[in-house]
Amino acid sequence: MAKFVYRFSEGNADMRNLLGGKGANLAEMTRLGMPIPQGFTITTEACNDYYSKGEKIDEAIVEEIMHALRDLESLSGKTFGGGDNPLLLSVRSGARASMPGMMNTILNLGMNDGVVATLADKTGNPRFAYDSYRRFIQMFSDVVMEVPNASFERVLDRIKEEKGAKYDTDLDAEDLLAVIAGFKSLYREAIHEDFPSDPYSQLIAAVQAVFRSWNTERAIYYRRMNDIPSNWGTAVNVQMMVFGNMGDTSGTGVAFTRDPATGEKKMFGEYLINAQGEDVVAGIRTPRPIAVLEQDMPDIYKQFIDKAMQLEQHYRDMQDMEFTIENGRLYFLQTRNGKRTAAAALKIAVDLVDEGLLSEKEALLKVEPKQLDQLLHPSFDSEAIKAATPIGTALPASPGSAAGKIYFTAEDAKAAHKRGERVILVRLETSPEDIEGMALSEGILTARGGRTSHAAVVARGMGTCCVAGCGEAEIDERKKTLDLNGHHFAEGDFLSLDGTTGNIYAGDLPTVPAVITGDFGRFMGWADQYRQLQVRTNADTPYDAMTAIRFGAEGIGLSRTEHMFFNEERIPKMQEMILAGDKAARCAALERLLPYQRDDFIGIYEAMQERPVTVRLLDPPLHEFLPKEEAAFVQLAKDMDVSVAELKARAQRLHEFNPMMGHRGCRLCITYPEIAEMQVRAIMEAAIAVQKTKSCKIVPEIMIPLVGDIKEFRYVAGIIRRTADQIIAEAGVQMKYLVGTMIEVPRAALTADKIAEEADFFSFGTNDLTQMTLGFSRDDAGAFLDDYYKKQIYDSDPFSRIDVDGVGQLIHMAVEKGRAVRPSIKLGVCGEHGGDPASVAFFHEAGVQYVSCSPFRVPIARLAAAQAAITVG
Amino acid sequence: MAKFVYRFSEGNADMRNLLGGKGANLAEMTRLGMPIPQGFTITTEACNDYYSKGEKIDEAIVEEIMHALRDLESLSGKTFGGGDNPLLLSVRSGARASMPGMMNTILNLGMNDGVVATLADKTGNPRFAYDSYRRFIQMFSDVVMEVPNASFERVLDRIKEEKGAKYDTDLDAEDLLAVIAGFKSLYREAIHEDFPSDPYSQLIAAVQAVFRSWNTERAIYYRRMNDIPSNWGTAVNVQMMVFGNMGDTSGTGVAFTRDPATGEKKMFGEYLINAQGEDVVAGIRTPRPIAVLEQDMPDIYKQFIDKAMQLEQHYRDMQDMEFTIENGRLYFLQTRNGKRTAAAALKIAVDLVDEGLLSEKEALLKVEPKQLDQLLHPSFDSEAIKAATPIGTALPASPGSAAGKIYFTAEDAKAAHKRGERVILVRLETSPEDIEGMALSEGILTARGGRTSHAAVVARGMGTCCVAGCGEAEIDERKKTLDLNGHHFAEGDFLSLDGTTGNIYAGDLPTVPAVITGDFGRFMGWADQYRQLQVRTNADTPYDAMTAIRFGAEGIGLSRTEHMFFNEERIPKMQEMILAGDKAARCAALERLLPYQRDDFIGIYEAMQERPVTVRLLDPPLHEFLPKEEAAFVQLAKDMDVSVAELKARAQRLHEFNPMMGHRGCRLCITYPEIAEMQVRAIMEAAIAVQKTKSCKIVPEIMIPLVGDIKEFRYVAGIIRRTADQIIAEAGVQMKYLVGTMIEVPRAALTADKIAEEADFFSFGTNDLTQMTLGFSRDDAGAFLDDYYKKQIYDSDPFSRIDVDGVGQLIHMAVEKGRAVRPSIKLGVCGEHGGDPASVAFFHEAGVQYVSCSPFRVPIARLAAAQAAITVG
Repeated sequence: MAKFVYRFSEGNADMRNLLGGKGANLAEMTRLGMPIPQGFTITTEACNDYYSKGEKIDEAIVEEIMHALRDLESLSGKTFGGGDNPLLLSVRSGARASMPGMMNTILNLGMNDGVVATLADKTGNPRFAYDSYRRFIQMFSDVVMEVPNASFERVLDRIKEEKGAKYDTDLDAEDLLAVIAGFKSLYREAIHEDFPSDPYSQLIAAVQAVFRSWNTERAIYYRRMNDIPSNWGTAVNVQMMVFGNMGDTSGTGVAFTRDPATGEKKMFGEYLINAQGEDVVAGIRTPRPIAVLEQDMPDIYKQFIDKAMQLEQHYRDMQDMEFTIENGRLYFLQTRNGKRTAAAALKIAVDLVDEGLLSEKEALLKVEPKQLDQLLHPSFDSEAIKAATPIGTALPASPGSAAGKIYFTAEDAKAAHKRGERVILVRLETSPEDIEGMALSEGILTARGGRTSHAAVVARGMGTCCVAGCGEAEIDERKKTLDLNGHHFAEGDFLSLDGTTGNIYAGDLPTVPAVITGDFGRFMGWADQYRQLQVRTNADTPYDAMTAIRFGAEGIGLSRTEHMFFNEERIPKMQEMILAGDKAARCAALERLLPYQRDDFIGIYEAMQERPVTVRLLDPPLHEFLPKEEAAFVQLAKDMDVSVAELKARAQRLHEFNPMMGHRGCRLCITYPEIAEMQVRAIMEAAIAVQKTKSCKIVPEIMIPLVGDIKEFRYVAGIIRRTADQIIAEAGVQMKYLVGTMIEVPRAALTADKIAEEADFFSFGTNDLTQMTLGFSRDDAGAFLDDYYKKQIYDSDPFSRIDVDGVGQLIHMAVEKGRAVRPSIKLGVCGEHGGDPASVAFFHEAGVQYVSCSPFRVPIARLAAAQAAITVG
Repeated sequence: MAKFVYRFSEGNADMRNLLGGKGANLAEMTRLGMPIPQGFTITTEACNDYYSKGEKIDEAIVEEIMHALRDLESLSGKTFGGGDNPLLLSVRSGARASMPGMMNTILNLGMNDGVVATLADKTGNPRFAYDSYRRFIQMFSDVVMEVPNASFERVLDRIKEEKGAKYDTDLDAEDLLAVIAGFKSLYREAIHEDFPSDPYSQLIAAVQAVFRSWNTERAIYYRRMNDIPSNWGTAVNVQMMVFGNMGDTSGTGVAFTRDPATGEKKMFGEYLINAQGEDVVAGIRTPRPIAVLEQDMPDIYKQFIDKAMQLEQHYRDMQDMEFTIENGRLYFLQTRNGKRTAAAALKIAVDLVDEGLLSEKEALLKVEPKQLDQLLHPSFDSEAIKAATPIGTALPASPGSAAGKIYFTAEDAKAAHKRGERVILVRLETSPEDIEGMALSEGILTARGGRTSHAAVVARGMGTCCVAGCGEAEIDERKKTLDLNGHHFAEGDFLSLDGTTGNIYAGDLPTVPAVITGDFGRFMGWADQYRQLQVRTNADTPYDAMTAIRFGAEGIGLSRTEHMFFNEERIPKMQEMILAGDKAARCAALERLLPYQRDDFIGIYEAMQERPVTVRLLDPPLHEFLPKEEAAFVQLAKDMDVSVAELKARAQRLHEFNPMMGHRGCRLCITYPEIAEMQVRAIMEAAIAVQKTKSCKIVPEIMIPLVGDIKEFRYVAGIIRRTADQIIAEAGVQMKYLVGTMIEVPRAALTADKIAEEADFFSFGTNDLTQMTLGFSRDDAGAFLDDYYKKQIYDSDPFSRIDVDGVGQLIHMAVEKGRAVRPSIKLGVCGEHGGDPASVAFFHEAGVQYVSCSPFRVPIARLAAAQAAITVG
């Protein structure tokens, strides 16, 4: 049978998967001879066993726990549940990955009326004993039995008031006896049983409560946000209590070996005399800075600094430590690699390399790629945000912070922007028609759609802050009002959005721009040196292209031509093309669009020069471009010289039941080859022009969307090649170009060998490939994905993190089949997953050459690619 | 280099792929020593070569033709293009599969002014010579040069009028010279060149015209309808002309060795004296029945009967022959297995077995499975249909014939049906709400949607005639009018629909019910004996189930529970369930639905008894059930005691962008487990009740739709098993049941090994699997599929015929992975493809155990399964 319980002396730092992070570090510190209260760890496997048995703890595990407890008794010379030297325990969760504050802790376990009396007597400090007891009752009731903590606080407040006490510490032993009596009767009322006096029952109940805490809603949510699988489970650490609340030679504190906000190499932390752990963070008494400890307890301070440095050297990373001083004796309660801001992470990584503690490769693994995003966007002023209370929260769809006046249509947003106002665009949901308004806004708030909704994807692409899918928001676009949890806003009222947390604030919070320190460049240089994957960007405008180059993009992996048609001047011409009554009229409208499109590509090629640029031919269903307002129809009918009724009838014929799987992608080129001809002309003429003016060598990459059959590819590629060859010949220049395809329809992956016979490159469109392989539309998935997380069917959003088992299988298949037929084929990824670190690791393993992501994710992808190269090889 | 031209003496019947059907048969007849005019065949590969070279005929092929022509000259002792015994040719298409009337024929080729003079002189029959010449000019101009035939007919009519002639045969040689002159000048006007006098140019132009005729729109359409791949190409047969128009000892005719309408063993056909081929079918002179030939030319008749019988014995099938008598000498021009009605096909197959000519297995291969459909539906009276002219045509979506008064809403249709009227339901498109009205209608006409649209699928399921996607029809559902090609219809006007051809007629054509002859049963008995695949049916009602059993279904492969909710009494309860404000209200509404659903299953189990029945849990997105009319909302709000605004807001929240990939299938059960609980209760209680009353052993098969992940399956299967076990325990009975899943999301196929660990069976839902694998919605594909056929990207509709390379690959994968993990797993197919013969052959090869199709396709599937077993083994 498996071993489910390990004494601290039986483990080490490498056993993190089994013992959890905290357990493994306690074992490691034991190995290092650090002063820690001894104890044992119940493994993560025991947690999984608990769930697999229908939330029951196995008898064999209980027995193992009892063995370990007896060993602890003999090690400590104390007795659990009685005797003249009673053993008290802390019971704490500890998962593989740190989930700070997500799970449960119970302190002072093992107390009852007998034990507390002995303790009072033995320590000669009854106040301490009763204080510990009342804390235990309160914590056990809250954490194990789910009696609301607030009711205990009310009892405490009542007695404090009766006694005229300001702080808990003002209560004396007798007062605390009253508190204990009050807590016990409160427990009895709530649970209809007496507070359990048997310490063994307390212990097993506490262990089970920790296991249960693995599956609270907030734990599930945290795991999803941080890509932690639900089957990892949590370990439970049972540790002998030491007491910081035994008087003025006792105390407790937390400290970091470096500043977690800036990374500065300077001990950072705080402590309280005569207190237990939660008092430091509870904010009732103000803790003192760690440096003051040098005056308070010089010996202890020196000892602490020595040990802390020893830990940092040993773990070769900044440490976040908890410690307790019991009657003048220092104990470390835990240590872990400390959480830090992105700026601190970079500085610490670079410093540790300079200090010779880490190699460059090791340093690259110390920074969480997603964190880099913080460095690229403005954020709220830290003082202002501390003072503010969110009035609502929704999905953090695109990071950064923004404040401005709210407007409810893209038109109004544009007008306000012209007047020089900062704008927050508030919409039920956005559509491609809103793009210009979105681009001019500081931030975007939507009521519908998820983290991969149109608003979210476009906002991330633009680097614009976006909070999406705020179901609580009642938005009346006609009346131009927003109601959110009792707060009412009209057009022009101020609103502030935090796209990093999803928080929404009333009013105009001040923001500060991001500062990129010199460490950033140096660190990213290392990343570029070790990564094998190239990183391109998805960019539709010269502005996006320039931003992405600044962030290190090596090319454009996806330029979506459709976004180019949405400005005021162009959209009517696009609409005339779409609603043309015959081919001649359509060609005439295309002829008028050509100069715009050519200018777009000239701008992009001027920005990118010799860097590769992949342009995708028109992809979305044509009805996305149709006018929505009556007035626009009337004007268009006039311009086109047809009746409004006729025009509406034509528009109506474009209606689709499932537009995502409708008349779009290469299907458009097959029905209307003239659209592809115009687009290819624009691309090639632009490339030829820029090649000449910039004296650089351009190799256009033209990409066909939504191919599912080699015959589709062949037909459209034929149009592209004929058109391109003719333009090259007319211009009398030398120019190579590539014709490739998106792999985004499952059938394209299944028949990649056939398609590779004629395609120069594949680019995996993982958004659509995920939609079709899993069979759900990302726009509609919001209705059930929450239930999928709650019921643990999905651990993460498959539109954020690639589904390795399903979609990944198709990608592997396409890579193999494609390479088998055409070993030189270029393989890339241009879906949103290109900016997700876990997905980037998968793409590295799958053997594609590049990933492409929105400009603001380029640094993330560069680091993720380096980490994949270092860890996978 | 490949050989592109075969003399008739170089081939045989087995070379059909290379020589086409006609060419292979001409070679075979040559081998048999039948009297046929000699010649040669230009292969189907030459046709493909012609297209691969951009519609150019290769010089080497031209040379081969010239060689073969010179051999023909020496064989016949005639000279092409001159000399005193001129060789004239017929040039005819001949594909691998018979495509009657789809492609081109040119007779009398090789004529010019010189040749015609020689011919007039040599035969002493100038009238014959000039008649042949004018026919050639007319045919060549029409078929090769695309000068409309009607203009030639006008010249002919003018001269007939001038001469007071009634028939062509009333014109004498001199009149015909005038006709020739008129034809030549008509040609010059149209083409701006003289009519070509060089016979070699005529020949090569004619060969190319035959190649081109392979890709006319009607040929492409015919191929698609008959599953003929576009890369087969057509052969060209060049054959020495013999003349039936040389006077009263000459003639021409067509004959079948058995009656193609009834199958009766009796020579059937007709002939004309002094005529060429097209005169027999042109209908200007009335041909004589073949039996009369016995009096006209007794020797020839005897000879013909002998040879015809010899051919039938040789081919062991009913023969369709063309023959010509030239100056008292009989020639066969071609023979082929004759087209026949379904009834004839069955009788002939059964008779040939009884005559010892065919084995049962061979006979089974002689009948086209799709034809059986004809035997199961009413059809128009054959006299009435001859007299009627269609006013329009659209997709033959569900076979049979129907006539009745038109109504534009399901409500109106129901009311009219109550009044005892026969109803034709006319809709822009149908939705599930229309089902009751559809079921009460004789026929259905829709303006939108393809052969797999809602209307088509449901109509086929019901066996109701349906003509779908009539784009020409202007339907105003509000005004209740239909305008079709200039014909105007108001509510209550009569309309007749032919669902087998897609033709639409004005007025009330009489129909006759189908008669199933005794041969049918015997023949299907053989099919059942040899097939390995089981055939189940898709049935949602006891009525469907009974129909399917009559047609030989062995079980139900798919019972769609959602269709059960659409009647007047139930839909409001369903709507209350969907729009419930909380779980309690939803459970209460479900409780009210339970008795209905249980009664449905009782009816189905009573019909099916011990036959297996697979019930699928609720699948469609809930908004499909919502009220559409304001009045319905108001009533519902009153019943539910909530405001109309609140109710509409709830309904609005159910809106989806891509409902096909939205909140449906197992996702519903995951969000609302109570729905699955109610359905499982209904199924199990019904099964237990019927098991008791009928004393039979029922094993319910419960199927979860739209599973893409084992965790989805596990969650829903858990609900099903808990509920079912509880009901079985409560009832105190013994009952086994199976829990399985649809494989219809690509990811389910990709991860079938994981799903098979817990699923008792897989049922391939090939409709959705095709949609998601190919990435297009069948409801929206109409907008581009036509272009796909025209541009030869698709040969057939992937929703009718399984896409073997893409979808088939996933099916193979799922079968392998599923069986590897669970060798006993039950595998079936429940998509529309289960009734398509080519797809059934694929499923046989793929190794599934059963297919399931709509009741009227059951006989087709049975025969197709037998054919697959016989040919594949």
